[in-house]
Amino acid sequence: MDFLLFQFGLCTFKYDHAESKYIMKSFNFYIFPKPFNRTSPDVKFVCQSSSIDFLANQGFDFNKVFRNGIPYLNQEEERQLREQYDEKRSQANGLGALSYMSPGTNKRPSAIPEDQKKFIEKVIERIEGLLQNEESTNIQLEPCTGFQRKLIYQTLSWKYPKGIHVETLETEKKERYMVISKVDEEERKRRGQQKQAKEQEELKDAVGFSRVIHALANSGKLVVGHNMLLDVMHTIHQFYCSLPEDFSEFKELATCVFPRLLDTKLMASTQPFKEIIKNTSLAELEKRLKEVPFNPPKVESAEGFPSYNTASEQLHEAGYDAYITGLCFISMANFLGSFLSPPQNHVSASSKLIEPFFNKLFLMRVMDIPYLNLEGPDLQPKRDHVLYVTFPKEWKTSDLYQLFSAFGNIQVCWIDDTSAFVSLSQPEQVQIGGNS
Amino acid sequence: MDFLLFQFGLCTFKYDHAESKYIMKSFNFYIFPKPFNRTSPDVKFVCQSSSIDFLANQGFDFNKVFRNGIPYLNQEEERQLREQYDEKRSQANGLGALSYMSPGTNKRPSAIPEDQKKFIEKVIERIEGLLQNEESTNIQLEPCTGFQRKLIYQTLSWKYPKGIHVETLETEKKERYMVISKVDEEERKRRGQQKQAKEQEELKDAVGFSRVIHALANSGKLVVGHNMLLDVMHTIHQFYCSLPEDFSEFKELATCVFPRLLDTKLMASTQPFKEIIKNTSLAELEKRLKEVPFNPPKVESAEGFPSYNTASEQLHEAGYDAYITGLCFISMANFLGSFLSPPQNHVSASSKLIEPFFNKLFLMRVMDIPYLNLEGPDLQPKRDHVLYVTFPKEWKTSDLYQLFSAFGNIQVCWIDDTSAFVSLSQPEQVQIGGNS
Repeated sequence: MDFLLFQFGLCTFKYDHAESKYIMKSFNFYIFPKPFNRTSPDVKFVCQSSSIDFLANQGFDFNKVFRNGIPYLNQEEERQLREQYDEKRSQANGLGALSYMSPGTNKRPSAIPEDQKKFIEKVIERIEGLLQNEESTNIQLEPCTGFQRKLIYQTLSWKYPKGIHVETLETEKKERYMVISKVDEEERKRRGQQKQAKEQEELKDAVGFSRVIHALANSGKLVVGHNMLLDVMHTIHQFYCSLPEDFSEFKELATCVFPRLLDTKLMASTQPFKEIIKNTSLAELEKRLKEVPFNPPKVESAEGFPSYNTASEQLHEAGYDAYITGLCFISMANFLGSFLSPPQNHVSASSKLIEPFFNKLFLMRVMDIPYLNLEGPDLQPKRDHVLYVTFPKEWKTSDLYQLFSAFGNIQVCWIDDTSAFVSLSQPEQVQIGGNS
Repeated sequence: MDFLLFQFGLCTFKYDHAESKYIMKSFNFYIFPKPFNRTSPDVKFVCQSSSIDFLANQGFDFNKVFRNGIPYLNQEEERQLREQYDEKRSQANGLGALSYMSPGTNKRPSAIPEDQKKFIEKVIERIEGLLQNEESTNIQLEPCTGFQRKLIYQTLSWKYPKGIHVETLETEKKERYMVISKVDEEERKRRGQQKQAKEQEELKDAVGFSRVIHALANSGKLVVGHNMLLDVMHTIHQFYCSLPEDFSEFKELATCVFPRLLDTKLMASTQPFKEIIKNTSLAELEKRLKEVPFNPPKVESAEGFPSYNTASEQLHEAGYDAYITGLCFISMANFLGSFLSPPQNHVSASSKLIEPFFNKLFLMRVMDIPYLNLEGPDLQPKRDHVLYVTFPKEWKTSDLYQLFSAFGNIQVCWIDDTSAFVSLSQPEQVQIGGNS
């Protein structure tokens, strides 16, 4: 979870019934948590030199990520930013004092300290001057500290709840200064709305790429990935919230964010594909599915979208991986359609035929639990052939092999210096082992 | 220490007595710990999005760092890599079996396992064929596993200590295969030397940028930096070794690596400069030293080296900062020469005049210990006016200000929720405070 997702590949497919072809749009999003303002989270993340080197060798454009990466916020960060805006707005609207005294907070309006009284009095003098002078419509105050601006906002919202408009602007040198304008009620409202609309835009920009994920999640579309468990985890962690410690809570969260997931690696490892497909790595799977008994689908990229050529070695970018993952799914789904009578050339994402593969994510490095089941309890394989073994701490794996040499092949899973799980290749051998 | 130094700026200055000018060469090294081979360290490092964003806004070229950054090794990593080469070489030289049985290691030559015997026998058959066939000079074995290659090396070094040369090469697909050639003694030696020379080159490349730092350290030259404590720490940590926990050990290590350091921020904050220079930040210092009573030096860049123009806003790159740091040092050193009789226009780096500034590094955020003294004990200012205060955990800084309001200004340094150091502005007030 200390690592960062830099590039997000997405490829959409839409079936054109009239032409019996798929129209695809592929996207490569470069994303980076650029700090939005001075109070926004300053994300620390870990890089590993081997991964950086791998990406560099693939021609990955780091400048594009770091200079022009799309920002994003998770839901908590979005909520906080929204609150900041609300608070600022209510201050500016003359509701400042009230909101500061809302129950549950211990913030109170600051009393004006002795050394600031003169400063505030001068500001009020200038405003009185403005209100009495029919020729000028606004005054611009000298840049001042954040604390002074807060005092000014407070004082003015109490003293002039209507009739003036207060705005904080920035000089080119990033110094903040205030502009105070005379406005009638209508103008005041109009300006407030204008500002609010602008803030809404800023907020949208800050939420940035998270909006793509929200749209994806809320679309109800089938989301297909290849060996996608880590992708799902990173996506939720980066764009929604921290992952829960509890396993069943994670399952609930994942199905809540993505109600329909399908993992092509799991699909290819399951009947009826298991017998036909030897290598389920994405590149090999894509090649295999071009040959009989499979039918590669007819796919065209939508106008204005890049097209990929699967025949030539492609840059290893996320959008391309998303594209060939989609191709694999379509080929396998359509293959299932060939068993129907009459056979179907196109199997849609809402077909009953693919439901058995929903929400089961491929599990790596576990021999006898092929998938993580997001929608219910996981498979519980027998563990009768697994022994818990303790030994002197000088022992190595080779000593364990020697000890069990009479029982054929074993698998060793180390627990610590002096214990390990040893699994025998055939469960019935455990009875024999029990006597030794 | 989790952060990484990406760019190292260095600028050398040489005085041309005949022309009374300085010749400078400035360097911007982009450095990155690219993994050298499969066993080399895979550095993990932390990035902070605000720092990345700062660099991106300065136009920093991340692709250059990650794609073409110069690698480096610290001394321990260099030692390990050298050992790996030595071990590989002694194996290939037919000393493999012997070195495996050297005392102190528990590695032993592997017995050939049952399932590999046939494989090894076939290899030996092919070699016997090669030795008896006068027309062919070498054979190429099929790619095989690392374990098989190890077995082959072992067997051959025992069976054919001379007369054949064994080499492991890589196919384009990165599969490793062995080539076995007939060679007479002389050819065998020549090849061995050739290989060793190539390995030495590879090793040099892997040590990479560390060699620049070693050259700098071993040069005995005065090394000048501005506010350089963190720079010195990062440089030692990245190119020499982990920093010691113990403070005095750090001092010893630092002076051992860099025997003569000079910090221009400390110099500018010390008499006689202290009175004349108000702002000691690098950019401001550089500007101030262009004006009376200082004399900006005449500096030219050496042929083929970039020149910087200090009048225009420059890209904030490390080489430029090194350059203006050098300018600042020269101006200040030459200023000291103006007090001599007769006055000296040029004060060299070996002049007694600058010795008082050696090996004292500017300390930030400490009011009364201006520098860290690398060559001896640090200044021990009186702490009579500092009180240790405990209080309820609800207390804030403002409560402490109120408590001590009778004693003028105070400084608060928090220890934890319920205690802090409070320093009064005048030491004699402590007696009064002691009664309360």
